[in-house]
Amino acid sequence: LENSVIFCDIGNTSFHFYEDGKTYKESVESFNPQTITKKVYFISVNVKFNNKLKELDNWIDLAGAIDKSKYYETMGVDRMVAVEAFTNAVIVDAGSAITVDVVRDGFFEGGFIYPGVNAMSETYKRISPALDYNFNFDLDIEKLPKNSQDAISYGFLKTLYSEVLSHSLPIVLMGGDAYKFQAIFKEARVDELLLFKSMKNLLKKL
Amino acid sequence: LENSVIFCDIGNTSFHFYEDGKTYKESVESFNPQTITKKVYFISVNVKFNNKLKELDNWIDLAGAIDKSKYYETMGVDRMVAVEAFTNAVIVDAGSAITVDVVRDGFFEGGFIYPGVNAMSETYKRISPALDYNFNFDLDIEKLPKNSQDAISYGFLKTLYSEVLSHSLPIVLMGGDAYKFQAIFKEARVDELLLFKSMKNLLKKL
Repeated sequence: LENSVIFCDIGNTSFHFYEDGKTYKESVESFNPQTITKKVYFISVNVKFNNKLKELDNWIDLAGAIDKSKYYETMGVDRMVAVEAFTNAVIVDAGSAITVDVVRDGFFEGGFIYPGVNAMSETYKRISPALDYNFNFDLDIEKLPKNSQDAISYGFLKTLYSEVLSHSLPIVLMGGDAYKFQAIFKEARVDELLLFKSMKNLLKKL
Repeated sequence: LENSVIFCDIGNTSFHFYEDGKTYKESVESFNPQTITKKVYFISVNVKFNNKLKELDNWIDLAGAIDKSKYYETMGVDRMVAVEAFTNAVIVDAGSAITVDVVRDGFFEGGFIYPGVNAMSETYKRISPALDYNFNFDLDIEKLPKNSQDAISYGFLKTLYSEVLSHSLPIVLMGGDAYKFQAIFKEARVDELLLFKSMKNLLKKL
């Protein structure tokens, strides 16, 4: 990735930056985009900053470089940017929600949304205090569980795994929980810089 | 099922009765087991009634008829009773939680727990108000979604479906949401009386 330019992926909880080979995060609660004077190429799923960023000349929205007709209206631009980076892949973005998008022969087939680790953990706990366990990511997914912790871990993880694998495409993991999920998706590749690399390519199409 | 005997499946929210060919429910909040003077054969996952029912001579716990060494300690007795009814099946009990149990050649392979419809709907809504949709049970699970409602419906339903089908066994649906799920699990058989039929067979082993 080139230096002297800043890339930023704006989500619902943080500004995720890439600059000079390093990544860092700022909270959406406290960060003021005006404090940056360098050029920032960004994508955003956070509507709260739409107007503010339009007023700042050095913040340039990369969404305009994407052919949105390939996707659907309510789809997050971060998912589109990830898909743009591949010709054949299942892209699993494991954050507060887990989005799974399938691209085959350069064609976006569609995608789905699954709850993230914290959200799903809350869910089991709320169904019954007897299901208040941490997920076991070292679970042997080849064996049906015979204890409660593995029963909810398998329910959360193996179901997702079975579906993702059914597409018979290379699996790419990204997002804050990517490494956790690699324990289950052993054949997957983790790419933490995926969005930023794809944003750099989109720059050329601006 | 024989008449003149009452069968009862006690869950966390209701007493589910079978009597004279009919089923009915009573809320755990308001129902008093002492109001029944006939013989009741019951199973219960509700620890709140353990002591009360032991004092009543006409309430007979069928749990004693099950060889529990085949199962695991924290497994609900209702799941064991369902498994006892089959030699080869994947049993999907779609209630507030969805339990999935696999029995092959009469051997209990294990099972897992997945959130029920209401719990999962709450989960998506809590992740983001943008995901506050009812699930689409008429979803075409052969096609990856390209809109938000189908994206969460697929995330909830197709993942479960892919895993359940992977066991290549007949699928039996039970529980309050059994008919909803049959729209997705088209090859499945719904059996609303499954637990009561299995309880009747267990009677012989008492």
